[in-house]
Amino acid sequence: MTDSRTTERYDVGVVGAGLAGLTAARELTDAGLEIVVLEARDRVGGRTAAGSLSTGDAIDRGAEWIGADHERVLEFVEEFGLELCEQYDDGVDRVAVAGELFDHENRFRALPEESASELQTALERIESLRRDVPLESPSEAPDADRRDATTLESWKREAMASEAAREAFDAFVRAEFTVEPSAISLLYFLAAVDAGGGLEIPSESTSATQAYRLAGSTQQLSEGLADGLGNAIRLTEPVRRLDRRGDDVTLETDDGTYAVSDAIVAVPPPLIDRIDHEPSLPARRRGLVQRMPMGAVVKCFAAYEEPFWRENGYSGSVLATNGIVTEVADATLPGGDRGLIVGFVAGADALEWSDRPETERRERVLEELGRYLGPRATDPLEYDDEAWSTTRWSTGGYNAAMTPGTLTTCGDALREPVGRVRWAGSETALEWRGFMEGAIRSGERVASEVLEDRGTRGD
Amino acid sequence: MTDSRTTERYDVGVVGAGLAGLTAARELTDAGLEIVVLEARDRVGGRTAAGSLSTGDAIDRGAEWIGADHERVLEFVEEFGLELCEQYDDGVDRVAVAGELFDHENRFRALPEESASELQTALERIESLRRDVPLESPSEAPDADRRDATTLESWKREAMASEAAREAFDAFVRAEFTVEPSAISLLYFLAAVDAGGGLEIPSESTSATQAYRLAGSTQQLSEGLADGLGNAIRLTEPVRRLDRRGDDVTLETDDGTYAVSDAIVAVPPPLIDRIDHEPSLPARRRGLVQRMPMGAVVKCFAAYEEPFWRENGYSGSVLATNGIVTEVADATLPGGDRGLIVGFVAGADALEWSDRPETERRERVLEELGRYLGPRATDPLEYDDEAWSTTRWSTGGYNAAMTPGTLTTCGDALREPVGRVRWAGSETALEWRGFMEGAIRSGERVASEVLEDRGTRGD
Repeated sequence: MTDSRTTERYDVGVVGAGLAGLTAARELTDAGLEIVVLEARDRVGGRTAAGSLSTGDAIDRGAEWIGADHERVLEFVEEFGLELCEQYDDGVDRVAVAGELFDHENRFRALPEESASELQTALERIESLRRDVPLESPSEAPDADRRDATTLESWKREAMASEAAREAFDAFVRAEFTVEPSAISLLYFLAAVDAGGGLEIPSESTSATQAYRLAGSTQQLSEGLADGLGNAIRLTEPVRRLDRRGDDVTLETDDGTYAVSDAIVAVPPPLIDRIDHEPSLPARRRGLVQRMPMGAVVKCFAAYEEPFWRENGYSGSVLATNGIVTEVADATLPGGDRGLIVGFVAGADALEWSDRPETERRERVLEELGRYLGPRATDPLEYDDEAWSTTRWSTGGYNAAMTPGTLTTCGDALREPVGRVRWAGSETALEWRGFMEGAIRSGERVASEVLEDRGTRGD
Repeated sequence: MTDSRTTERYDVGVVGAGLAGLTAARELTDAGLEIVVLEARDRVGGRTAAGSLSTGDAIDRGAEWIGADHERVLEFVEEFGLELCEQYDDGVDRVAVAGELFDHENRFRALPEESASELQTALERIESLRRDVPLESPSEAPDADRRDATTLESWKREAMASEAAREAFDAFVRAEFTVEPSAISLLYFLAAVDAGGGLEIPSESTSATQAYRLAGSTQQLSEGLADGLGNAIRLTEPVRRLDRRGDDVTLETDDGTYAVSDAIVAVPPPLIDRIDHEPSLPARRRGLVQRMPMGAVVKCFAAYEEPFWRENGYSGSVLATNGIVTEVADATLPGGDRGLIVGFVAGADALEWSDRPETERRERVLEELGRYLGPRATDPLEYDDEAWSTTRWSTGGYNAAMTPGTLTTCGDALREPVGRVRWAGSETALEWRGFMEGAIRSGERVASEVLEDRGTRGD
């Protein structure tokens, strides 16, 4: 780099222009502060990502569904004039586990009675346990050490005996958290379920967190926020160094140096220590970064002339362990004459299949869709997919999750400021963690913290 | 960076000048290839690190002990004319667990009979299980999925009932692997024990892997290798980008660009993806990086006028859970008139105490040494320590370990080349993993791979 470049000065520097970073930037701009947002990608939005098929159909390569209680998201939808679409919900769900295929209007009731009852009891037990986990300090939950030292897989084997119940649970965990039950602790799972608003042990087919989608893409939420921030956002400027040694925090990119009074880091957790911190991050903050890997998911899209599965009485909703596709959903937009299916390969299968050629994935995924939705599914107008583990600035999806033994040892570092550096992102959310709503709320939280701290300091 | 800089061309580029990288560089230089070694630090040696106290005493801030069967290390000791010292071994070991203090000439026999027998049975069971783990493909071990989904902590609770046996096991795991039993799977533990040469269920007090130390520091091994490589080594040049898109692999530092036919990455696993890879690393290679955190250790040094504990009949060897110090050893050099003690804080305590001021750590560690070695221990000539979790280019120590559910899903990526990029480092060793001997052997392995591949390609 050249020595001739000058240092720009701002009140607050935000690293990452996803929903969390953009929300924080907006709040702080509204409070009258000068903000710079440094984004590695050539677009805003992070894990909200618009795409389109050659058929012209808009798709969400990233975050897609909006819950009925996701207040902030719904406010932005209204503010930015976006079109909300209800999730298609009629017909029969399919559950493909233990080598069999079970149909029911409510996928959680599809299993044979004994297995269904076992699964229901296990999910109710999770609900009961998670209510005892303190939201802000989950490591103070009852029996926390032992639960953090127990994998969710070990717990599952104790809680359920039938193969169908176990596999339905696997599919559920993979679909919701994009991790294997072997890779997270019971305690982290309980804490994540709790911060995510609880399990929806459903009495209806459609879950409350998958109530709506947007016509277009959820990236429009990020773009709406970005529009209000104007030239505060610098794209294609990954932060390479973060120096906390002076009175200011200094952020360095390949193109510029930014001196800020406060910094907000709103990037996926594993990327936090990819920045060269000076001095090094505290041990537990770094320890957490190293113990909170991203989940793995390949999101697959198949477009058809029409939503033919509806004619056969299927909702398009599938939960499965009988192949690599874990979850399937109808993503047809109302009014469109095309049919669109999204499928998710998640967890270990996603890691494995991300590295295979797309042609192989296409063949395999369509073959499985054919099994679940009928033979017409194998011959789409177009297939496309997004392997989030190989994306450069997310390195996985949907979210990062703590490995066993991490929450009770490094968990406190999740939101704890390091000097004047603060942490945002959906993983840090106290409410709706893991959702867009959580990302937005984490941005609000961190903006409040900055304003409060500046008030105390007299800045 | 300026556009005017030129690209240097080499046959092989090695990232990291620890024992693994230096050994590989030496082998390839001996084979007639042109090598460049790019090292982030301003010194060679990685996790071998010389230090000294103000008393003038030399200390090993990093790797210290050499096993009786560590052939390659012993060959280098001879070649570089270094002085080997036998580990002091007389007197009584102390085991401080379950709130009590047990003495015995062999620390593994210190516990009361029932607990000792339980521990012995558990360790024998580990030895038996680890022999069934295939060295090169541990995920093909019997019952691999279930064992990889079970934390070592869960296994321990099944295997042992007495608090003393459990805590002695904890202390052993922390001392040897610098991780909590809650944070690794039974399968990874078995694989690591196997690749590390097996447990030494000791019939003598001194274990075979702690037979010798060097007068001076083990960093002399790295320096001996570096001397033979001359100006091939570029210090203070962390590799920022690694581009695999062309026929050559391109390595970029802040100071230069290097085009090489083959690259060897020999850095601690969590640092692999801190390099900006173009294209992104394969999903399982990246998945492994995110699921293989560094252990945590603070190595503490206390120098005294003389090794006073010997007079009291103590060997200086302590294994403990009754405080934050997990292991203590006599590090007095023969011939020196000073006494030197090293203590290790490891695992969760190391993460926590790394972030506290050194004065607090000093007070706490010396208080505990006083309990184990006598009151004179609280008043050393000098105290110093090294918190490896906060070091910039190691980010932890001794080694990285896979979290539960990782070995069976991403384990194959550990040594699998990515194009012409290959992986070395003690964590990749098939023999003596986790030791200096393993680092050296991994360097030899990767050099052989490069030579073989070049032969096949006709380079």
